[in-house]
Amino acid sequence: MTLKMDAIALHGFLDKEFAQVRGDFIIADLAPDRISVQMQVADRHLRPGGTVSGPAMFALADVTAYLIVLANIGPKALAVTTNCSIDFMRKPAAGQMLVCEARLLKLGRALAVVDALIYSAGQAAPVARASLTYAIPPT
Amino acid sequence: MTLKMDAIALHGFLDKEFAQVRGDFIIADLAPDRISVQMQVADRHLRPGGTVSGPAMFALADVTAYLIVLANIGPKALAVTTNCSIDFMRKPAAGQMLVCEARLLKLGRALAVVDALIYSAGQAAPVARASLTYAIPPT
Amino acid sequence: MTLKMDAIALHGFLDKEFAQVRGDFIIADLAPDRISVQMQVADRHLRPGGTVSGPAMFALADVTAYLIVLANIGPKALAVTTNCSIDFMRKPAAGQMLVCEARLLKLGRALAVVDALIYSAGQAAPVARASLTYAIPPT
Amino acid sequence: MTLKMDAIALHGFLDKEFAQVRGDFIIADLAPDRISVQMQVADRHLRPGGTVSGPAMFALADVTAYLIVLANIGPKALAVTTNCSIDFMRKPAAGQMLVCEARLLKLGRALAVVDALIYSAGQAAPVARASLTYAIPPT
Repeated sequence: MTLKMDAIALHGFLDKEFAQVRGDFIIADLAPDRISVQMQVADRHLRPGGTVSGPAMFALADVTAYLIVLANIGPKALAVTTNCSIDFMRKPAAGQMLVCEARLLKLGRALAVVDALIYSAGQAAPVARASLTYAIPPT
Repeated sequence: MTLKMDAIALHGFLDKEFAQVRGDFIIADLAPDRISVQMQVADRHLRPGGTVSGPAMFALADVTAYLIVLANIGPKALAVTTNCSIDFMRKPAAGQMLVCEARLLKLGRALAVVDALIYSAGQAAPVARASLTYAIPPT
Repeated sequence: MTLKMDAIALHGFLDKEFAQVRGDFIIADLAPDRISVQMQVADRHLRPGGTVSGPAMFALADVTAYLIVLANIGPKALAVTTNCSIDFMRKPAAGQMLVCEARLLKLGRALAVVDALIYSAGQAAPVARASLTYAIPPT
Repeated sequence: MTLKMDAIALHGFLDKEFAQVRGDFIIADLAPDRISVQMQVADRHLRPGGTVSGPAMFALADVTAYLIVLANIGPKALAVTTNCSIDFMRKPAAGQMLVCEARLLKLGRALAVVDALIYSAGQAAPVARASLTYAIPPT
């Protein structure tokens, strides 16, 4: 399996199409069936007590899963998230970036399935777990 | 069942504890086991093509479900989201606010379960469906 | 919206295609976007203490959601469950049948989404909540 | 972390408490934070065409996750499944046993979270993915 987009192409796509989150996400590692994405935690991601908000962790899981699908199907396909199940398991460490490690479990003609673990930098146990489904439109 | 917080108290709590989303959410209706919350869609919630982003819809479902739990257990309890399953079913209408209609399905000693439908103002069919679980810490 | 299969046709389909669960499920009510299905609880569905097992409740939710999809798309389509999220909220009453009330939230070309509440006969509060997605193959 | 129950103790517990599924499940591997369980596929687990039914795969995921929790907390605790999200990704091979590989992601005082992949013997790609939450009653 050859990737249709590498990390540079994916970053370019994010910058162009998701300008509102420009710079939030950095692809640290990319292989055909797995990806690692870092999120710099900014003030707008925080909740009282310094916890990263649920929507911010959801956004990280969603972008990460989207990128590994995109890497495989290319930039033209308009994949959309159809389902996400997410478990928040631990409080992220204050002031630490988050890292999302995702696996592409299925890449079908119509659906892709990805699962992911989110870690707080410097903590061994994951802070969240997510699984996501993307609908891939017919070409 | 008497509510421990009414809409005014809940708005005050949101303004104080969730200052980053101040003004985004308006409680339109509140009863012991159901709630309706409106979200004004701002530029930062959008994706290319004018669609509301997944994280923005997740945030609306999460805040709405949190508020109906809080209304029942009061402001001191530090309930945290432990799980969310969300289905994105249709594209929200451009330039329309979103409305989240949620039901409190269970309020136990340790766990609360809420389900929700999200509508785009002016569209009859829901754009998303979510179910959420909150852990309620021992008092 | 006219149904492509009524309750009699759906029962016939179940008897023929799902002979292993023959007689377990009875359609009590059917409309274009909702359905009510009863499950007679047998010994093989029980867990110690007389509780209905999780897999038995999953099966009820899955069959119920499948039937409302089938009622709308007809018997030839080979819809398959792609995702289910289920919350077990209360212990079913011993010796009571279960009733599943489901709504068809989306019927798209490729995906259908259904949500459901499961009740124990004679209890007002639902024992479980489920949402399910079905992939509908191209015709 | 020392296990409170080993594979022999877990098998004994299953035989006694879950007599209806006696012999269906075999623990192939057990470590403090992971477990592998095999399910012999019988006629009652099948759907037309030889596919293993959704409820049968759900049951395998549920038993597997339950066993790794039980191995850690011991036989007296009455853990109950509170949530399961499951994705059915591929058709299991006909006439093959299923293998469920699960990880214990969190073991808290009140909640445990497990995720799992289900494989059809002899197929490299997983047929299903599940995540499950168990409520652990206070001791």
